[in-house]
Amino acid sequence: MEHVNPGGLGSPPASISVGEEIYALAERLFPICRSITGDGVRRTLDILSGHIDLERHEVPTGTQVLDWTVPREWNIRSASITGPDGQTVVDFADSNLHIVNYSVPFTGILPLNELKAHIHTLPEQPQVIPYRTCYYAPTWGFCMAYDRVAKMSDGLYRVEIDAELKDGSLTYGEYLHCGRTEREFLLSAHICHPSLANDNCSGLALLATLAKSLKARKTRYSYRFLFAPGTIGSITWLSRNEDRTHLIDHGLVLSCVGDAGSPAYKRSRRGEAFIDRAMAHVLRREAGAKLMDFSPYGYDERQYCSPGFNLPVGMFQRSVHGTFPEYHTSADNLDFIKPEYLEDSFRILTDVIDIVEDDRTPLSLCPKGEPQLGRRGLYAALGGQASSGATSMSLLWVLNLADGQHSLLSMAERSGLPFRELAAAARLLSDHGLLAAAS
Amino acid sequence: MEHVNPGGLGSPPASISVGEEIYALAERLFPICRSITGDGVRRTLDILSGHIDLERHEVPTGTQVLDWTVPREWNIRSASITGPDGQTVVDFADSNLHIVNYSVPFTGILPLNELKAHIHTLPEQPQVIPYRTCYYAPTWGFCMAYDRVAKMSDGLYRVEIDAELKDGSLTYGEYLHCGRTEREFLLSAHICHPSLANDNCSGLALLATLAKSLKARKTRYSYRFLFAPGTIGSITWLSRNEDRTHLIDHGLVLSCVGDAGSPAYKRSRRGEAFIDRAMAHVLRREAGAKLMDFSPYGYDERQYCSPGFNLPVGMFQRSVHGTFPEYHTSADNLDFIKPEYLEDSFRILTDVIDIVEDDRTPLSLCPKGEPQLGRRGLYAALGGQASSGATSMSLLWVLNLADGQHSLLSMAERSGLPFRELAAAARLLSDHGLLAAAS
Amino acid sequence: MEHVNPGGLGSPPASISVGEEIYALAERLFPICRSITGDGVRRTLDILSGHIDLERHEVPTGTQVLDWTVPREWNIRSASITGPDGQTVVDFADSNLHIVNYSVPFTGILPLNELKAHIHTLPEQPQVIPYRTCYYAPTWGFCMAYDRVAKMSDGLYRVEIDAELKDGSLTYGEYLHCGRTEREFLLSAHICHPSLANDNCSGLALLATLAKSLKARKTRYSYRFLFAPGTIGSITWLSRNEDRTHLIDHGLVLSCVGDAGSPAYKRSRRGEAFIDRAMAHVLRREAGAKLMDFSPYGYDERQYCSPGFNLPVGMFQRSVHGTFPEYHTSADNLDFIKPEYLEDSFRILTDVIDIVEDDRTPLSLCPKGEPQLGRRGLYAALGGQASSGATSMSLLWVLNLADGQHSLLSMAERSGLPFRELAAAARLLSDHGLLAAAS
Repeated sequence: MEHVNPGGLGSPPASISVGEEIYALAERLFPICRSITGDGVRRTLDILSGHIDLERHEVPTGTQVLDWTVPREWNIRSASITGPDGQTVVDFADSNLHIVNYSVPFTGILPLNELKAHIHTLPEQPQVIPYRTCYYAPTWGFCMAYDRVAKMSDGLYRVEIDAELKDGSLTYGEYLHCGRTEREFLLSAHICHPSLANDNCSGLALLATLAKSLKARKTRYSYRFLFAPGTIGSITWLSRNEDRTHLIDHGLVLSCVGDAGSPAYKRSRRGEAFIDRAMAHVLRREAGAKLMDFSPYGYDERQYCSPGFNLPVGMFQRSVHGTFPEYHTSADNLDFIKPEYLEDSFRILTDVIDIVEDDRTPLSLCPKGEPQLGRRGLYAALGGQASSGATSMSLLWVLNLADGQHSLLSMAERSGLPFRELAAAARLLSDHGLLAAAS
Repeated sequence: MEHVNPGGLGSPPASISVGEEIYALAERLFPICRSITGDGVRRTLDILSGHIDLERHEVPTGTQVLDWTVPREWNIRSASITGPDGQTVVDFADSNLHIVNYSVPFTGILPLNELKAHIHTLPEQPQVIPYRTCYYAPTWGFCMAYDRVAKMSDGLYRVEIDAELKDGSLTYGEYLHCGRTEREFLLSAHICHPSLANDNCSGLALLATLAKSLKARKTRYSYRFLFAPGTIGSITWLSRNEDRTHLIDHGLVLSCVGDAGSPAYKRSRRGEAFIDRAMAHVLRREAGAKLMDFSPYGYDERQYCSPGFNLPVGMFQRSVHGTFPEYHTSADNLDFIKPEYLEDSFRILTDVIDIVEDDRTPLSLCPKGEPQLGRRGLYAALGGQASSGATSMSLLWVLNLADGQHSLLSMAERSGLPFRELAAAARLLSDHGLLAAAS
Repeated sequence: MEHVNPGGLGSPPASISVGEEIYALAERLFPICRSITGDGVRRTLDILSGHIDLERHEVPTGTQVLDWTVPREWNIRSASITGPDGQTVVDFADSNLHIVNYSVPFTGILPLNELKAHIHTLPEQPQVIPYRTCYYAPTWGFCMAYDRVAKMSDGLYRVEIDAELKDGSLTYGEYLHCGRTEREFLLSAHICHPSLANDNCSGLALLATLAKSLKARKTRYSYRFLFAPGTIGSITWLSRNEDRTHLIDHGLVLSCVGDAGSPAYKRSRRGEAFIDRAMAHVLRREAGAKLMDFSPYGYDERQYCSPGFNLPVGMFQRSVHGTFPEYHTSADNLDFIKPEYLEDSFRILTDVIDIVEDDRTPLSLCPKGEPQLGRRGLYAALGGQASSGATSMSLLWVLNLADGQHSLLSMAERSGLPFRELAAAARLLSDHGLLAAAS
């Protein structure tokens, strides 16, 4: 699979589906120990740069970003606990989830009971490792399977955390696909989680693949792809781009897009923004799809939808974060995501992009009575049948609502017909001189 | 039943219900072979003219009507197929559904396989004849029971269609009941279907009977009754009356009003026009009644509700066209409609006319606190009972909502009480000086 | 229970719950024979004056009040029927429900069949006495258990009604708790029913106790408590306070607040007034709570919501009047109400007062992105957990919606979180300088 090798820029062999392409990319991102700063983010951006021309930003520690300050940069080389018997109890090398992300460096010997105050487990899921962070607290900790901790005998344990917290920078990547206008569609995924496949190797890989697929397409909108650490990353971007946010007409945050759950969309704070209506339309016939109202808890839509910005940015995922047992544990691994689900998520995004690109407010040039479709070859010549079929219905709906007050998406909402079909009908009617040139 | 004889102008005997009167008229219309043009329409208007003073219009072939052109006039004398054995296989004289409506004249001898390309059947209903048309295509065809066709043996068949397609005119009829104002209620039924009882002998007979019944009534609105061929007829009328359409405040298209199905109303394109609200009110307590949103497929509401007119015209029917097996087949015969259902449809229309006529926005002359109804004899003197009954409730609702912002129909919608009861309450309160003169 | 003795002004012993306090007060009000005028109302106000500083009004007979006239004052000393055998059949001394309220004085001897025209029973509840009135009709009558009447044998009966109808006055009581503003919350209960415990000793006792509890509280709104006879009393108050009604921002009519039924709220005529929304919020999680649209039948909300006033006054009760078998009968006695239900009603009212008092439209001082709650000690330092719990959610919701367009009640409606929790969050955020001073 040459295309996913480092630096490999060629197209994938035709035999590989887009779902497999996304999966392969997620697979490469998975092992890296990411955090909100540090070399893990940079290595991740290196790999993504093999697919798209990423612009990379480094924002120094101490920079004021809105109400926040860019923290010291964190890097870790190794971390382990050695037992009274000299055996290694837990080793960062086995799983980067073992260390509480942003743990301060520490070397010392502790009795078990003191050590336990630094160990996090999930008693209800005794075999999996939880994921924990301590970004803004000067502490350290380990995450372990509950069963493993239960077997630890009394005695003195040696802890070694070879980490580094020092002035450096926060790193994020950005890619802009330029369209005919500078109005933007923002697509954003958090890049700060270590080895969690769905949350969010899936989102990173999907976005990069989508960005790559847009290269060949001339679009009306410009598409901005943002790969930044959660919370502090989007806050940093907003802080540095306050004067550009008015250009954002549509936006989506992506996370957890590779699991078997049905697709889910969380509306923007506005609730009825175009992106909210377009996503609702795309998901309306997906079995089990969930539409949720905005709430200020979740991913970076929290920042984009803060009241001072109030951008039309929703959030797309499959299983809803915090509701599936694999969430934020070692069970969110490469078995938990599948090419077919990644592909389904990819299709949903391209469908919504098609709506954003193709929506028009057509104007009928023959608004009084129906035009005679038959003499234009647009209608079954033999009347009197029970149904004229879906295509005829699309033509009739577009003609009936082409009063300058209804966009194609409004028509889709009112008629219950697919946007795609109405867009096709509008093209056909334009070709026959029945609609004015698109506005 | 003298009143339904040709030219009979007398009133029906009192012993005949209005449902029976409508049925008898539909019965007379049934045998005629109608089309969008031709003598069948004229004969139908002749019969309707026995009930109301119809104005008849003849619009010449070739006349441009909006996007359409009045076609050549079609008339047919006979049509048949004779089999290899000299026996008549099918004869227009048995049922005018046997010929595809608007078939071109044709005489010839064809082998069965070629002939079959011109024969339409309904395999899923093997004993009934379908109804088909070819208005704007120069072709011909027959409609037959599938079982009959299955028995046709190989060989040569003689086809004779003695029809005529030549310059002539499109015919429609119109009747205007003049009210106190020139604001109009348009009632329209298509006159183009041959021997189909429900679709639309029922609508034609109901409209004519309703028009006749209005003669004796002084009305606020003017009522325009239109008997015109589907699509091309309403387009012709709209084309010739563009400058009058602004007078139409309410409108209904009628079709399939005689079968056993529950009443159904399809809203106008506006969705919340007065006629939409009034019909919803009338149907709200009818068991099984259906309220449907506008769609641009159906009868002539398609034309009245085209975006350049956007008239407040809905459609009333019983079983929804295209959803019952008898639709557009020989099973839509005189057994399929019944006087009781025609009478029920008649009552629904008179109920909606009552709302249109009687709606007012009353203004209370005693808006502060309730007026003392008791001393005016409007209230049970003995208080303390659990309910004062519906009549008292109507009085209280009208008084409470008579703030100049609520019409009687609004009050009916908010209170859930019948319009009729609120209108009666408003009259009573006006008589007692509690409401200002009607606006 | 010293606190409920006449003139007893001390606080109840701490061991008595507020529900028991309200019940004890209702118990003292129960025996009194009240009507829309007369000494029963005055004795009731005497008892309530033991709790709050009531202002008492006497409005003379013949005074014009809106469309009504204050009637002659009614008082009754005794009433009885003596049978042919000299035995007392029915005696007002046993129950003041026995006499039709406002019966004219009468002494006479009647045969049973004539007497029966004056006797009211409930055949479907043969053992209870109905409650009837004849305020504005010069008649008389008795109310009796159906079973008792069934046992009356033919013969002559002696009727004695020692009542008095003469010029006097209509009496009502009023208490104003002054807040920081003169904008008012009106709380109104009818005082005209005789020995009916739920309807409305419960409402009178609850209102007086609530008024007393407000004494110690500094409030933003002024609270007006009105104890007036039904219909004519509120009409009298409105007539004398027309120039003050514009001060009423919120209002509730209280009746039947002591039975086991679930709480019920009937919206004001406006339907979406603040009180309607606040009551809906308080009742949203009460099991079985009922929210009903306004209708012009019920208690004094009919007058407050008449179109000339259209005040934002709803009605609170438990079992809906007219729907429970005890309603307006002798079964609505002191066993029918319970301290626990009175206490629940009291709590609902204090909850709604808290919303009225505490509602604010906060403005975020940090609207761009989320403020960093962690460094302010407002957030769990260790991230990555599935849920941050309800308190964190309140903080996030308030921050997200503090755009000057959302009051705390709007936030509660949108978030689904309790008002109380959001108000606490707003206080906390204000304390940390994240919200502007309350508007």
